[in-house]
Amino acid sequence: MSTIEKDRNILTLINVFAVAPDKQQELVALLIDATQQTMKRLPGFISANIHCSLDGKKAVNYAQWESMADFEAMRKNPEARPHMQAAAALAQFDPILCEVSNALSAE
Amino acid sequence: MSTIEKDRNILTLINVFAVAPDKQQELVALLIDATQQTMKRLPGFISANIHCSLDGKKAVNYAQWESMADFEAMRKNPEARPHMQAAAALAQFDPILCEVSNALSAE
Repeated sequence: MSTIEKDRNILTLINVFAVAPDKQQELVALLIDATQQTMKRLPGFISANIHCSLDGKKAVNYAQWESMADFEAMRKNPEARPHMQAAAALAQFDPILCEVSNALSAE
Repeated sequence: MSTIEKDRNILTLINVFAVAPDKQQELVALLIDATQQTMKRLPGFISANIHCSLDGKKAVNYAQWESMADFEAMRKNPEARPHMQAAAALAQFDPILCEVSNALSAE
């Protein structure tokens, strides 16, 4: 289980992948494998939450890192690179680096 | 605090807004107001988690509804419409309806 909270000083990375519907499940499996094999062990990793769109055309990774420095270190890590290249071969993506402005729940 | 979990039978709506950087904070305030004034009271609302991108060009709402029927009812609700029109006047957006395939945390 992952949590979203206001005023938690972390980096949130929202990565929307555009994918052919017949490749969506392959992409989702690849993102889960990349997290379990590599990302989970890297310093500053908090969570990766893999979503698939109901129309089959997208996948979304809602990921959390302790800091921008940890995220940048992951991007330069040789262990992470093959996973990112494999994702790039299947889908187009454009990561959004952001912070939580507010987390509002039902009363 | 909101939570992301696998095998929870809910609808996740990830809405990425493209916005002019000088309008980002206005958009974020509008999304928070819409949630607090209207969405929070609607049947099936679980959470809305408003994010702003560090480059100023995006906002993302990570929202959770109990079911597609609840989400569709919100979209047809006359109380919700003015909020959606106000957001459309400030930003372009394309909601992604999805489900959680996996939620993976650091060990």
